[in-house]
Amino acid sequence: MIRLALDAMGGDNAPACVVRGADIACGANPNLEIVFYGDEARISPLIAKASHLGRASIIHTADAVSPDDTASQAIRRGKATSMCMAIASVAAGETDAVVSAGNTGALMAMSKLQLRPMTGVTRPAIAAFFPTVGELVCMLDLGANIECDAENLVQFAILGQAFHRSLTGNESPRLGLLNVGEEEQKGHDYLRVASRRLADPELGINYQGFVEGSDITNGQLDVVVTDGFSGNIALKMAEGISSMFTRLLRRSLNKSFLSRLGYLLARGALSEMRSHIDPRHYNGAVFLGLNGIAVKSHGGTDRIGFANAINVASELVDHGFLPDVSAAIARANTILERKDDDG
Amino acid sequence: MIRLALDAMGGDNAPACVVRGADIACGANPNLEIVFYGDEARISPLIAKASHLGRASIIHTADAVSPDDTASQAIRRGKATSMCMAIASVAAGETDAVVSAGNTGALMAMSKLQLRPMTGVTRPAIAAFFPTVGELVCMLDLGANIECDAENLVQFAILGQAFHRSLTGNESPRLGLLNVGEEEQKGHDYLRVASRRLADPELGINYQGFVEGSDITNGQLDVVVTDGFSGNIALKMAEGISSMFTRLLRRSLNKSFLSRLGYLLARGALSEMRSHIDPRHYNGAVFLGLNGIAVKSHGGTDRIGFANAINVASELVDHGFLPDVSAAIARANTILERKDDDG
Repeated sequence: MIRLALDAMGGDNAPACVVRGADIACGANPNLEIVFYGDEARISPLIAKASHLGRASIIHTADAVSPDDTASQAIRRGKATSMCMAIASVAAGETDAVVSAGNTGALMAMSKLQLRPMTGVTRPAIAAFFPTVGELVCMLDLGANIECDAENLVQFAILGQAFHRSLTGNESPRLGLLNVGEEEQKGHDYLRVASRRLADPELGINYQGFVEGSDITNGQLDVVVTDGFSGNIALKMAEGISSMFTRLLRRSLNKSFLSRLGYLLARGALSEMRSHIDPRHYNGAVFLGLNGIAVKSHGGTDRIGFANAINVASELVDHGFLPDVSAAIARANTILERKDDDG
Repeated sequence: MIRLALDAMGGDNAPACVVRGADIACGANPNLEIVFYGDEARISPLIAKASHLGRASIIHTADAVSPDDTASQAIRRGKATSMCMAIASVAAGETDAVVSAGNTGALMAMSKLQLRPMTGVTRPAIAAFFPTVGELVCMLDLGANIECDAENLVQFAILGQAFHRSLTGNESPRLGLLNVGEEEQKGHDYLRVASRRLADPELGINYQGFVEGSDITNGQLDVVVTDGFSGNIALKMAEGISSMFTRLLRRSLNKSFLSRLGYLLARGALSEMRSHIDPRHYNGAVFLGLNGIAVKSHGGTDRIGFANAINVASELVDHGFLPDVSAAIARANTILERKDDDG
């Protein structure tokens, strides 16, 4: 059994979207055991209407983190919020992972406090997988660390490489550092420092150098490293464009009798493609570098998106990637510290 | 007549792509008069094969800026490069605008030196229009200014608003500041400072607050302001995703007999949609805040993309937006300086 703690009160459509998403996920995976944290009076009726939540339980609390809270405000709200209690259950070993669609800053701050960063990790990062023309690409940081320096980016690379390797079995994932051009002189100074360190063969990173925004989806990369500001902009830009594309496609195919007929014939193929780029199917980002599994769902997602975030959490529990990532950080830090001493 | 100076040696596919792009543009617009700057021995045979370049002339030079040059290296190469000579012809009033697909940093540095920033403009920015589900959106900066502060962003907003207004006639374009969330506490400190200034009604900006990457294409904004690093990442991410969609769409529609038949029937509608998101049709970014018109083409574009950059330049010459933008900057600076004195 995989036991998941869900923050039932996080996200724009909570708690309905959380409960309905859990219903979908449990319908597809009988090994899930769900614990909802939040307002019992609102959650209970939703569970009663669900088909696959017979085993789910509720831990009641009336408090919740607000989307407008800063991280420190959220922490001051105390340990009785649904988010904090859900994380605490992972920290106590009562559940295997937490999923929340709530305030990202608060979720990261509370997760750091309770799950603690792995030894040697200075800044946990948010990572997720995205579609490309080839295999999925793992990108980090997606918004936990707005200001970054070279050291942070090198650590994100170690985390991302180990995470990708642990999940896919690919021993040498191709890793790129996001910049505004491939040439050596481009971008921020700290990017050049990070790039030089990542190119050091001793670190064992299959480093492809600077990559541009257009390279993320070209299928030639397995891991893309960037700061949390750019990563978040790129992630949401991709969502916006996917949504634009779907709308334009629908509009085009509705234009004439012939195009509507064409759509009917090609419907299966087109829906497969739409599914391939549907942001809901990639919903669920992991907080990487913590001693526990915390998954962040998009706040505005629907039940299908939330069900996917639950699937991400259960796959992460299944894969048990934490020891691999932790070992990779320890190894890299030993090398980097020796180099610092030498230098 | 509109006289355009083309840097024939700039870009990955120069000079062929430049000459062929000019041929397409001149075929569509008989009012263009083209002057090519570059290697005559390579340009002449290409012109001889063209259909619409009977009136075009060549100013020969053997020197060219390299894609790997830093801005200062490019400037040290001297005034004999094709890029520098093309800009100089605009500065001297011999041509109305310059178009180059060469090194962005070099083009901006040389344009600043020769065309000079408008009075009161501290940092010219790169701006371009992009497709959304509604009208086009103007975004800046797209890569000229990697590090920005609040003052720079406020100036980009003034530039972008005046540019949009001058080109579209929309008196009150809706303007957003790109951030990682809409909440007040999100993002870099300088974004919060810029946001407070932009919200000041005296500045006369129709300010919509912080916007996210997913808002850029939702049709609810006319101008999006960001730093050159994030703007460049977002722009290229959009290119990469458009290209991924086109490939996935083609692959899906080729999957079965039915989907191929469907494609044949819907071909017209689909090609219209592909055209709507084709990055080549939006190629051509303007250097905003200079006393002259300089247009940057994507370095990797083809003849169709370069022809579009030429169209952008000729439309900008037609619209004569420079006095409008210059007046807007003067007006905004008067207000901002008075406020600084008061504060």
